[in-house]
Amino acid sequence: MAYEELYKKLDMDIEKHNQLMEILGQVYQELFLSRKNRPEGMNYFDGVIAEIHGKRIEELFALKEQGRALVGTFCIFVPEEIVVAAKGACYGLCGGAQFSIPEAEAHLPRNICPLIKSAYGFKLQRTCPYTQLADVIYGETTCEAKKKTWELLSQLHRVHVMHIPHKKETLERELWRKEIERFKVEIEELAGNTISFENLKEGIETVNAKRNAMKRLYDLRCKDGVVSIAGLDALLVNQISFYDDPVRFAQQVNQLCDELEERIEKGISVFPEDVPKILVSGTPMAPPNWKLHSIIEQSGAAVVAEEACIGARYFRDNVDVSGCETVEDLIDALLERYLKIDCACFTPNDERVENVIKMCREKRVDGVVYYTLSFCHTYNVESKKVMDRLKEEGIPVLRIETDYSMEDVEQIRTRVEAFIETLR
Amino acid sequence: MAYEELYKKLDMDIEKHNQLMEILGQVYQELFLSRKNRPEGMNYFDGVIAEIHGKRIEELFALKEQGRALVGTFCIFVPEEIVVAAKGACYGLCGGAQFSIPEAEAHLPRNICPLIKSAYGFKLQRTCPYTQLADVIYGETTCEAKKKTWELLSQLHRVHVMHIPHKKETLERELWRKEIERFKVEIEELAGNTISFENLKEGIETVNAKRNAMKRLYDLRCKDGVVSIAGLDALLVNQISFYDDPVRFAQQVNQLCDELEERIEKGISVFPEDVPKILVSGTPMAPPNWKLHSIIEQSGAAVVAEEACIGARYFRDNVDVSGCETVEDLIDALLERYLKIDCACFTPNDERVENVIKMCREKRVDGVVYYTLSFCHTYNVESKKVMDRLKEEGIPVLRIETDYSMEDVEQIRTRVEAFIETLR
Repeated sequence: MAYEELYKKLDMDIEKHNQLMEILGQVYQELFLSRKNRPEGMNYFDGVIAEIHGKRIEELFALKEQGRALVGTFCIFVPEEIVVAAKGACYGLCGGAQFSIPEAEAHLPRNICPLIKSAYGFKLQRTCPYTQLADVIYGETTCEAKKKTWELLSQLHRVHVMHIPHKKETLERELWRKEIERFKVEIEELAGNTISFENLKEGIETVNAKRNAMKRLYDLRCKDGVVSIAGLDALLVNQISFYDDPVRFAQQVNQLCDELEERIEKGISVFPEDVPKILVSGTPMAPPNWKLHSIIEQSGAAVVAEEACIGARYFRDNVDVSGCETVEDLIDALLERYLKIDCACFTPNDERVENVIKMCREKRVDGVVYYTLSFCHTYNVESKKVMDRLKEEGIPVLRIETDYSMEDVEQIRTRVEAFIETLR
Repeated sequence: MAYEELYKKLDMDIEKHNQLMEILGQVYQELFLSRKNRPEGMNYFDGVIAEIHGKRIEELFALKEQGRALVGTFCIFVPEEIVVAAKGACYGLCGGAQFSIPEAEAHLPRNICPLIKSAYGFKLQRTCPYTQLADVIYGETTCEAKKKTWELLSQLHRVHVMHIPHKKETLERELWRKEIERFKVEIEELAGNTISFENLKEGIETVNAKRNAMKRLYDLRCKDGVVSIAGLDALLVNQISFYDDPVRFAQQVNQLCDELEERIEKGISVFPEDVPKILVSGTPMAPPNWKLHSIIEQSGAAVVAEEACIGARYFRDNVDVSGCETVEDLIDALLERYLKIDCACFTPNDERVENVIKMCREKRVDGVVYYTLSFCHTYNVESKKVMDRLKEEGIPVLRIETDYSMEDVEQIRTRVEAFIETLR
C-alpha cells in the first residue's frame, strides 16, 4: 500500500481499511467506470475517488504539518468560509457506507439514521483518514440522533457542537450569529492566527466561486431537452465538493461545464430523447451512497437534480459580500446566507416546500422521488407537506425510505420501475 | 351515554369514542380493579379514570364557558403555573393508546414514537375530549418528530409552538425566558386578563403544592423496606396529575400518603418482603400506557420509582418564589426551575445520568429497567451513557424498547422475568 506510512501516523486500522477500499473500488468500477458516453471532464472526478484516501489525504496532512486547521463536519451549517479564510480545510467526514455500521450498532440504536451510524462506526473502526486527521469534528444540533451521538463521539475524538436553533426569529438569529462568531474564534485558536477582513472576504469568495460552479452544473445537466451528464455523475461531483480543494474543484467543475455546453449544442445526451426526468428530494447522500440514483437510472429515467444538502441546498444561495466593510459585516452576510437554508430541522419550513416546486419547474421534471434515509424523522414527517403540495401541482411523486444495506435494492427497483412506467 | 350531548358540542366521533371507552374499561378492570390490597386512597383515582372523559370534561367545559383558558400540552416544558394563575386549566392530551395510531399512520411515518402518533390520531379521530376542548394546543421543539408533527396538527387545530433550546448557555436562557413571557402574553390574551403578581405567585404555589404531594408519594411508596403501594398505582397517580384539578389532586395525593404512612408503620406491603425493587428510567408513559409496569409487577418485582417526565422529572424541582417581588422575578424563578429539567433533548445532559444514580440510591433499588418508546432517538441514544454509568456503579440494568402494541408483551415478559431472576 502506497499510503501505509501515512495511515500508520493517523492510527488507522490498515487491514480493515484495505477491505473497505477494495469494496469501494469494485462498486465504483461497476457503477461509474463501466458506463459509456460519460463526459471527459469526469476523468478528474474519477481520479479524486481513486485517490480519495490517498493524494487528498497527503494534501491535508501537509496542511496539518503547516499548522493549518482541519475541521471535519457532517452538515452544511458549519461555515466552511471561515476555515478557508484561515487557510485550513473544512470537509465532510465519511458516513455513507454500510461497512462501518455493524461496529456502530454496538453503541448506538439500530433504528437511527445510517449516516450517523456509519460516521460513528468509521471513528470506532479507525478506517476514515479524514476523521483521523481532523483537529476537531464540528457537530451541530440539526437532528437529535446526531446531537446525542456527538456526546458519545466526544469520548473518542475532539468534538465541538454548534447550536443551530430550530426557528428563525429574532433571538434565534442572534444565537446563531454568536455560534458563527464562536466558530471563528475557535478556528483562529486552532490556526494560531486572527482572521482579517481580507482573509474572510477571500474565504467567502472562494466558496462562493465553488457554489457558482456547482450552480452552473445544475443548470447544464439537463437543458434544452439534452441530459448532458448522468445524474449519478452529477451526484458524484456534488459529493466531491465536500472533500476537494475548493479552488481546484471549482476549476474542474467549470471545465466539465464547458464540455457540457458543447454537448448541449451538439445534442449529445446520455439518455434517449424521451427519458423521464426525475428530481430526487430529501436527505443527503454521502459517498459511496449511490444506491437510489443507480436504481433510478438503471430503470430508464434520468436524475436531473437533487433537492438535498448534497445538492441544491448547498449551492443555491451565496454569501453577498457587497457593501461589507468590516469582519462584523461579513459575519452578518454569512448569517443571512446560512439562514436561507431550508433544512427540515426548522419549524415551520414552508420555504422548502416552495423550493421543491420551483426546482420541478426549473428542471421541467416528470416526477419526484422523495428520498428519506431510514429513521430521519424531520425529512420523513415533512414528506407529507411536500407530497401534498406536489399532488396539488399534479407532479407525480414516489416516496422511498431506505438505508445503506443492499437487501431492499430489488424491492426498490420494482417500485421505481413501476413509477417510471407511469411517467412515460 | 351520559355525556353524549357534551361530546356532540365538542364535535366528537361518539361511536368511535364508545369503542375506546369500552376497551379502556376492560383494561382498567383487569390491571387495577382486580388487584388486592390496594390502598383505599386509590378509590379517588379509580373514580378519576372512570370519569376521565366524563366529570372532568364537564368541569373543563364549565371553565370554558366562563371564558377561562384551556391549554393542551404534550410536555412538561409548558409552564402550567401561568395557566393556573389565569384560573384556566393546563392538561396533557391523550396520547397513550394504540387505538388511535392506525389513523395517524395515514399521515405520519410508522417509525416515529407511538406517543406522537397516538396524540395526532386522537385529533384525526375526534375521540379525545381534552383535545377537542383545548383553546390552543401548546407544542414544543423538544423532539423532532413532535416538532414536525405540530406542523400537520396545526392544519387541524390551533397550535402554538414553544421553542425549547437544546443547550443551556447564556443566549439559550434568554431565548427560553422570552418563550415563557410569550406564553404568558398568549394566555392573558386567551383569558382576556392580565396576570398579576399575586395571581402568578398563587398559580406557582398551587403547582408547587401539587409537586410536593407527588414528591411525598415518591418518598413513601417504598420506605423502610415496605412497598406500601404498587408501582402501577403510583404511576397512575403520576399520570392523573396531568389531567386533574391541581388543588383537589394534591389533597387526594396527601390523603393517600397519610394512609401509606400508616401502612409503613404497620408493615403492610403489597409485595413480599424480599421483592426486587425496580427503577424505571426513560420515556414518559401517558395513560393508558401501563404495559411495562404491569409486566414487571406481574413478574414478581415492584416498581418503586419512575425517572421520567411522568414521574420524578415532573415533581423533583419546585419554583422558588422566596424573595420575588415582581412578575419579572417570578418569571426568572420559573425559568430557573424549568432549566433544571434534565430531558434527553439537551446536549450535554450529564445531570440526568447523575440523577438516575441518585434515585437508585434514594430508593435502594435492585435494578433499573431503561425504557424507551420506539424510535425516541434522544432517550434511545442516551441509554448508552446511562447504562455505562449504572454498570460502573454495579447496578443491573435491562433495556426495553417498545411501543403501544400488545404483540411483544410475551417477549418482554420473558426478558423481564429473566432479569428479575438475576436480582434475587
